[in-house]
Amino acid sequence: MLVSRIFENGYFRGISGDNGTVQVDCVMSGQPGKRPHVVIVGGGFGGLYAAKMLGNQPVDVTLIDKRNFHLFQPLLYQVATGSLSPGDISAPLRDVLRNFQNIRVLLDEMVDIVPEQKQIKLKHRNEQLISYDLLILATGSATHYFGHDQWATHTHGLKTVEEALDMRRQILSVFEEAETEPDPERRETLMTFAIIGGGPTGVELAGAIAQLAHYSLDRNFRNINPKKTRILLIEGGPRLLAVYPEELSASAERTLVNMGVEVRTKALVTEIGENCITLKVNDKPEFIRAGSILWAAGVKASSIGRVVADRFGLELDRSGRIPVEADCSIAGHPEILVLGDLANFSHTPDGKPLPGVAPVAIQQGKYAAKTVLKRLRGEPVPPFKYFNKGNLAVIGLREAVADIWKLRLSGLIAWFIWAFVHIRYLIGFDNKLIVMLQWFWTYFTRQHGARLITGPGFYD
Amino acid sequence: MLVSRIFENGYFRGISGDNGTVQVDCVMSGQPGKRPHVVIVGGGFGGLYAAKMLGNQPVDVTLIDKRNFHLFQPLLYQVATGSLSPGDISAPLRDVLRNFQNIRVLLDEMVDIVPEQKQIKLKHRNEQLISYDLLILATGSATHYFGHDQWATHTHGLKTVEEALDMRRQILSVFEEAETEPDPERRETLMTFAIIGGGPTGVELAGAIAQLAHYSLDRNFRNINPKKTRILLIEGGPRLLAVYPEELSASAERTLVNMGVEVRTKALVTEIGENCITLKVNDKPEFIRAGSILWAAGVKASSIGRVVADRFGLELDRSGRIPVEADCSIAGHPEILVLGDLANFSHTPDGKPLPGVAPVAIQQGKYAAKTVLKRLRGEPVPPFKYFNKGNLAVIGLREAVADIWKLRLSGLIAWFIWAFVHIRYLIGFDNKLIVMLQWFWTYFTRQHGARLITGPGFYD
Repeated sequence: MLVSRIFENGYFRGISGDNGTVQVDCVMSGQPGKRPHVVIVGGGFGGLYAAKMLGNQPVDVTLIDKRNFHLFQPLLYQVATGSLSPGDISAPLRDVLRNFQNIRVLLDEMVDIVPEQKQIKLKHRNEQLISYDLLILATGSATHYFGHDQWATHTHGLKTVEEALDMRRQILSVFEEAETEPDPERRETLMTFAIIGGGPTGVELAGAIAQLAHYSLDRNFRNINPKKTRILLIEGGPRLLAVYPEELSASAERTLVNMGVEVRTKALVTEIGENCITLKVNDKPEFIRAGSILWAAGVKASSIGRVVADRFGLELDRSGRIPVEADCSIAGHPEILVLGDLANFSHTPDGKPLPGVAPVAIQQGKYAAKTVLKRLRGEPVPPFKYFNKGNLAVIGLREAVADIWKLRLSGLIAWFIWAFVHIRYLIGFDNKLIVMLQWFWTYFTRQHGARLITGPGFYD
Repeated sequence: MLVSRIFENGYFRGISGDNGTVQVDCVMSGQPGKRPHVVIVGGGFGGLYAAKMLGNQPVDVTLIDKRNFHLFQPLLYQVATGSLSPGDISAPLRDVLRNFQNIRVLLDEMVDIVPEQKQIKLKHRNEQLISYDLLILATGSATHYFGHDQWATHTHGLKTVEEALDMRRQILSVFEEAETEPDPERRETLMTFAIIGGGPTGVELAGAIAQLAHYSLDRNFRNINPKKTRILLIEGGPRLLAVYPEELSASAERTLVNMGVEVRTKALVTEIGENCITLKVNDKPEFIRAGSILWAAGVKASSIGRVVADRFGLELDRSGRIPVEADCSIAGHPEILVLGDLANFSHTPDGKPLPGVAPVAIQQGKYAAKTVLKRLRGEPVPPFKYFNKGNLAVIGLREAVADIWKLRLSGLIAWFIWAFVHIRYLIGFDNKLIVMLQWFWTYFTRQHGARLITGPGFYD
């Protein structure tokens, strides 16, 4: 049998057999007879969509995640504000992938990489390195304070289920405290929420808290009036939702103001302490007391980025992201693809890196899987192109802004599009039904169903 | 105006005015013009049903609970086995009572009572005692180890949301550990569940774990087969569900055995260690290794019982319950009613105390409220009579046993009755819809939707 091995960039890309077809069983692994091993680190949007597309394909896949579930992060703010339960926006990874016998799931955390041996090191399997033929890194991001790590103690982030439940506890507990607080000044502080960051997360949080305070908690208290809750949305830049067209930013701001939110743009946070924030507005300092300070201002790529960058001599960007090539690979290492929030992908028409949003991760995940399949068939892989379907942010019940295919919508129609898109992408069919029903219910009754204060007791 | 004050047992029961009617505004409080103050401690079934019935009545009500939500405990095992989320079986107390302006909710914990002054002391309001005209104690029960408190470290209880989530983490984590465990013996231990206690909770847990292992986790793992999970249900007495008719105990045991559960009756637990249990069977010791030991053998009345008993010189029963009179009051103190799991109510035809189940608490809660209302009207209060509507226990999907109005049912019909009754009593209408839908979904797909490992990380 006449075979010719195809190499590209020094990387083994395939074997073409003498009958003109490509033998798949040894492609990529370099060892005839052995199926190539694709290791995916991270079960978020990027990793999970890559894994699903590689299901029942002629590759062995190992998906590694610290957690046993995929989390639908865009709806995490609804867990934090008591509309949904964590179970509603999560799907067990093993369950989503149960029909793919070629995929195994490993609960662990990647801590290091040995590129020369094509192996990674895991936190809880020190002895046993995992070998890969192709590695997909998609570990996402975490809450980030831009060099002010001490602010973490005074604020609440929103990237994990635990952070969301902690934020829920905070939001619900301040009303409980205020109800029995005799000092009017302290009561006012308790009933003030400061949300830092005017991006989609901040806007959605501000809207959801306004809805909770002004409608859902109606008649719940005897001494305080939750309608008097003060909600501040603080943004350093000149407008909310900076990546949206200006008219939608203006519309979002108008809607929020109508819902009773104080929108403070061009307000830079210079200091955060216990229940207090110092702003710089027009070069003048301003001091604000707030019982709850919610951080929606920034995320940083997960810490594995630093390790990988060191091994490959790369420089991370300001958000800790790894710069990638046009095919999502690390320069000189086509066998390592980096996706989603962990990647700085700047091969865009305007040269700006793609934003850290779910659609980018999903599209890159699918692209990574296609890359594997194309390489298996010995086909060339075109560079990744992001297809921006549009931007969507919900502001409140029946209020959203949408920027889709040159359509700029706000209000009820945008809200329905938002609801449809989010339901559409919820993984696990039963979750979709449940969440739909919850929303339907909230839509009619304005009630938030999951207002439990759990975890460490209210007073502990 | 001619008034005559009505006293009974030295307790001020009402005022009959000269026109023959009873003046309600000063009844019970003893002070004309002041509405009587009813303090309810505990927002479980007893306390909440009492509060609801006193809503918008001419009394002031304070409901005190440590938690901000009512928990539907009969379904807690479904949270522990990943079928439901905590939010599905909880309702915020303030929300349930929001339409009753005469009821205020206080998040706190009763720690002491000063009977002479008709006042109670709260944990977080040391300075400020709460005065009552009528006190309803309904603080329920907690997991209890009958003098073997050291067993708590090796087992998992099921009385609070946190315990349920902890049990869920345990149940799901052992499969994860087993999947990567190289030692076959250790793997077998990990995949063994020992449930201690053959009452309704034990039976329900055993059935739910069998369903999870044998159906829901199907095809989830690559190295282990969850169908080989060993589930032991250990009961000291001669049969499961001791309070049920024998034929239903036998039916429950048959069903569980068919589901793959090993039922061990007449097996006394003598020792529990890390992943191991020592039994005494036919006077011989037997040693069992189990990765998860789940405690469903007993509860004890909440610790406030001890404090109250000391103040009144009462003797608690073996389960820490306060003995009560036929009208649920403490002897000589008609102004203090004790309900539900906290009370030992033995004024029954056979002299046996009423069981610690939800229907008893609900009926006593309603009775306590009626007592208040009757006293307000100066009417005599008949003693409490428990109307036993029957016993219901679910064994698995489509399998239950029911002992209702002399009907003894098992199988699918019993399951439908069980589902109907539990949905009927779920407080908060949206929860009913959601839970119904979840069950409907589980019924058809055998999938458990809420299989998240949360809290302290899997490996932490």
